[in-house]
Amino acid sequence: VAALPITFLSDYGYADEFAGVCRAVIARIAPEALVIDLTHGIEPGDVRRGSLALADAATFLPHGIHLAVVDPGVGSTRQPLAVRTALRGHTFVGPDNGLLWPAIERCGGPEEAVSLSASPVLASEISASFHGRDVFAPVAANLALGASLADVGAPVDPASLARPALPEPILAADHAVAHVLYADRFGNAALDLAPADFRAIAGEATRARIEAGELARDALIASTFSDAAPGEALLYEDSSGRLAVAINRGSAVSDLGLKVDDALLLRFE
Amino acid sequence: VAALPITFLSDYGYADEFAGVCRAVIARIAPEALVIDLTHGIEPGDVRRGSLALADAATFLPHGIHLAVVDPGVGSTRQPLAVRTALRGHTFVGPDNGLLWPAIERCGGPEEAVSLSASPVLASEISASFHGRDVFAPVAANLALGASLADVGAPVDPASLARPALPEPILAADHAVAHVLYADRFGNAALDLAPADFRAIAGEATRARIEAGELARDALIASTFSDAAPGEALLYEDSSGRLAVAINRGSAVSDLGLKVDDALLLRFE
Amino acid sequence: VAALPITFLSDYGYADEFAGVCRAVIARIAPEALVIDLTHGIEPGDVRRGSLALADAATFLPHGIHLAVVDPGVGSTRQPLAVRTALRGHTFVGPDNGLLWPAIERCGGPEEAVSLSASPVLASEISASFHGRDVFAPVAANLALGASLADVGAPVDPASLARPALPEPILAADHAVAHVLYADRFGNAALDLAPADFRAIAGEATRARIEAGELARDALIASTFSDAAPGEALLYEDSSGRLAVAINRGSAVSDLGLKVDDALLLRFE
Repeated sequence: VAALPITFLSDYGYADEFAGVCRAVIARIAPEALVIDLTHGIEPGDVRRGSLALADAATFLPHGIHLAVVDPGVGSTRQPLAVRTALRGHTFVGPDNGLLWPAIERCGGPEEAVSLSASPVLASEISASFHGRDVFAPVAANLALGASLADVGAPVDPASLARPALPEPILAADHAVAHVLYADRFGNAALDLAPADFRAIAGEATRARIEAGELARDALIASTFSDAAPGEALLYEDSSGRLAVAINRGSAVSDLGLKVDDALLLRFE
Repeated sequence: VAALPITFLSDYGYADEFAGVCRAVIARIAPEALVIDLTHGIEPGDVRRGSLALADAATFLPHGIHLAVVDPGVGSTRQPLAVRTALRGHTFVGPDNGLLWPAIERCGGPEEAVSLSASPVLASEISASFHGRDVFAPVAANLALGASLADVGAPVDPASLARPALPEPILAADHAVAHVLYADRFGNAALDLAPADFRAIAGEATRARIEAGELARDALIASTFSDAAPGEALLYEDSSGRLAVAINRGSAVSDLGLKVDDALLLRFE
Repeated sequence: VAALPITFLSDYGYADEFAGVCRAVIARIAPEALVIDLTHGIEPGDVRRGSLALADAATFLPHGIHLAVVDPGVGSTRQPLAVRTALRGHTFVGPDNGLLWPAIERCGGPEEAVSLSASPVLASEISASFHGRDVFAPVAANLALGASLADVGAPVDPASLARPALPEPILAADHAVAHVLYADRFGNAALDLAPADFRAIAGEATRARIEAGELARDALIASTFSDAAPGEALLYEDSSGRLAVAINRGSAVSDLGLKVDDALLLRFE
């Protein structure tokens, strides 16, 4: 193949031409590169959700270049980066605001990183507010054509990369406090409690009690939706390996009123 | 060409990375396959709408593999399927819940069908809730590379495939009762009454009366929007060959309050 | 390359299969053409927003065919068009309702134009309401394969092309009245006042007063978001070269209540 594939995740949405213009820029530089839109529907500026979506995709990505832009600090001093990972030699391209970090970690950590702020392959005019088009897309396209990190940027210490702020679960002998990391389109709420830690506390229990403010609800500890009755709540390991709350044939978000960052007390009897 | 094209329809939406991850899985197996997203905006779990969107697209699809995932019963006993059709040799891949059936019918009916539940080409680890990624995408990619149905699954009786539950219109000499099958983005409401049946009842009438609960509205019998005055209701044969209700430069859904499954009494004078 | 790339912008949205079906039609005619979705999220029938999104993309498009369909008058007497531009030889394909004009202007104006109403490459059956599928996609695909304008249509006078209705800003010695052209996903509001005209009136001022109905708000005159404090309003030249109103880490649309066509009085002290 003449070019590596490029995956592309952003908060540019679907109402405007922003993501399409980035793809047009890539097509002018690397017309033979396959470009795969992971999603452009990350909520505007939601770096954490973007970082987790990218991390959950990381295991499944083809060897190539992974462009990610959720960049509320565009135009400020945050560095634009390209980072090669230890496992499988993926290259991630995006702002140094924590967005790339969880995916990089899933791919063995950073092996080499460069700052793109004085890259020789940027657009001839660089806008203050659209670095996806003027900085990140041209760099990704050049990398897809075979440029090395040294060709597109100046070395930075991989240990210096920004990491996202994430909540921390609280583990006790007979209960745990977990936080809602994000909710997906189906209304399933992913938690920050590792399934193994959950199982260690839950032991042989087949049901858990979920409490959060006004909410108090029993949930089945299950392996998939259809283990629960329609309308029943369940706790399960989701397809990304996260503990999650769902309602079979319903929505944990709308039926239980769960929101991002809610703290859930999980108890067992 | 080294690979057949793959079309892809789902209810995965655009806010999460689900559809993109399926495309990544396909790209790792069949990097040269052209993948065409038909839509990922089917409402979560709306098998009927997915089945009709796929059927309406079917006539226009390139010869190839057609991946469709609207799968509220994922993880239950419903079979994962691949089905080859009699006309044009299309192959449809998806859950056996009625989603594929109307499209298969438009393509001459099923000629050969296999269950994928013990397919040799599935992901090495299969999640309980994301068969698009772990079951259907790998199968579609292998089929695009030239695998036969026998290579990817075990034979099932084509006559056993699930069919979607659809309403039935009521036809009388001088009136009909039709149901709203779905509404599109433009607010046009597609009905379950065949245009030929409608014309047989309407005869020479140029206007119809639409009644549904509180709603009573005259509509022009027309061939396209611009035959009606702005704001006027019309009944016309839509681009998929369905009888539909529209408002020129408006929305039948918001202006008339139409919803899916509403029963409309159509009368003529 | 065997085929020119095709870019595609529409108001078909993401809930239905409309844009995907157009891509399927293209794939049957020109399977090797790279198709880039610019966006399908233009509000239904919003010709002006479509025309500006296409124009803002125009500078960045690869040499090729640019398909654009926002077509509330489909089925009426408006002409379907293909137009080649003077600069870079782009070919735009879409309805003659003003949608294409601003992009054509950015590419040096029209050099040759043809009407597609009796094109020899249309679908064998042409629906009254889905010309994207039956008229514009087949023409775009044939042009991507190397057909000339003369091959696909009949000459029309390039001077006769429809132009969109746009508001006009009012310029005075010490103030201006600008109108909101559109708002993007991030809540930034693009104005019809050219940045150079704005600077000529603003002079050395570093702040402006924005008044519109109940709204009266000071704004920083800035070059990018991060020049302003979080929550502060700013006036800046956006990445498309338009004067725009934004709120750093906020939304001018929801925080200031701005809507399309709002007239804003801009004053300086």
